[in-house]
Amino acid sequence: MSSTTGGHRRGKAVRDNVLTAALNELLNVGVDGVTVASVAEAAGVHVTSIYRRWRTREQLITDAVLSHLDPLSIDVPDTGSVRDDLIALLASLDESMSSPQNWALLRLATMPIEIDRLEEARRRITDERMTEVATILERGVARGEISPHVDHRLALEAMYGPVYARRLLTHEEVDEAYLAGLVDLFLDGIRAR
Amino acid sequence: MSSTTGGHRRGKAVRDNVLTAALNELLNVGVDGVTVASVAEAAGVHVTSIYRRWRTREQLITDAVLSHLDPLSIDVPDTGSVRDDLIALLASLDESMSSPQNWALLRLATMPIEIDRLEEARRRITDERMTEVATILERGVARGEISPHVDHRLALEAMYGPVYARRLLTHEEVDEAYLAGLVDLFLDGIRAR
Repeated sequence: MSSTTGGHRRGKAVRDNVLTAALNELLNVGVDGVTVASVAEAAGVHVTSIYRRWRTREQLITDAVLSHLDPLSIDVPDTGSVRDDLIALLASLDESMSSPQNWALLRLATMPIEIDRLEEARRRITDERMTEVATILERGVARGEISPHVDHRLALEAMYGPVYARRLLTHEEVDEAYLAGLVDLFLDGIRAR
Repeated sequence: MSSTTGGHRRGKAVRDNVLTAALNELLNVGVDGVTVASVAEAAGVHVTSIYRRWRTREQLITDAVLSHLDPLSIDVPDTGSVRDDLIALLASLDESMSSPQNWALLRLATMPIEIDRLEEARRRITDERMTEVATILERGVARGEISPHVDHRLALEAMYGPVYARRLLTHEEVDEAYLAGLVDLFLDGIRAR
């Protein structure tokens, strides 16, 4: 084994070590509590050897989260009714936010930082969510429940936005009654008929 | 003047000084960049005399923002059409987020901190927004445009949620076409008719 390969292997061991320590810290103290110093201590490395690999605290956390990401896809419900499918989908979205990794990703997304891997993960997650919503809406169109002219992307944002707002801003409860109310509003609109 | 009053006046002068410095820092570097050390330096006081008055960085920022809050109420548009009123209202909401103080309040709300004054401000702002939405919807009901059975609170969240999600999470543009699309979805729903 050449010394370069040995150095590379040691480098990878340090890297894995630091990422695992960062993830543990994240699970213990939350995304706002993780410091480079506490990760360095837990990993048994010097702070400078972390800063050599990750320029900022946020980049370290992003890599730690993305190296151990929970499953991104949600089982698409198929109850035979668009209303019940959408309520179940919103409940799954909300449930997915209770995972510490997914929650950390969401909190990182609210921070004024630019991290390519984070942006890439955000796009991948949005694509997953788009596919799920599109599947449900297309089934609804095929059954004659739903207008064929709905913009799927707008539909995704209109339904998910209020759930994100409760979790991120108002911290109010997200229960089935709330989700059913949102879906009914979304299906029927508010016009007098 | 008794020495107690003098002490009280000096205390208030320090307090005002620190809050002004904190607000300036906030405007310069954003809510994530403000540190107690930089505020202390700008205010010409010792860090400990800040921590004597504010237990945490976040409490200091909250007090700084709330001591110089931009107007909370938005002029309620009255165009004669619910659709145009709602688009204008969402545009005002979005515009209000471009104020550094309002933006700081919003970012503070996403942080896992509990600050009574922040919670109180959030409630006051929600009440303002509720009154505005209710005024527009009630006019719409009176003109026969809108169903009288709409839950105003749910309507508020359904319309505002997607705008907050763009600003806080995806950082995508919020333009008039986007807002009009949301309002049309909200008015008409997605059911086949």
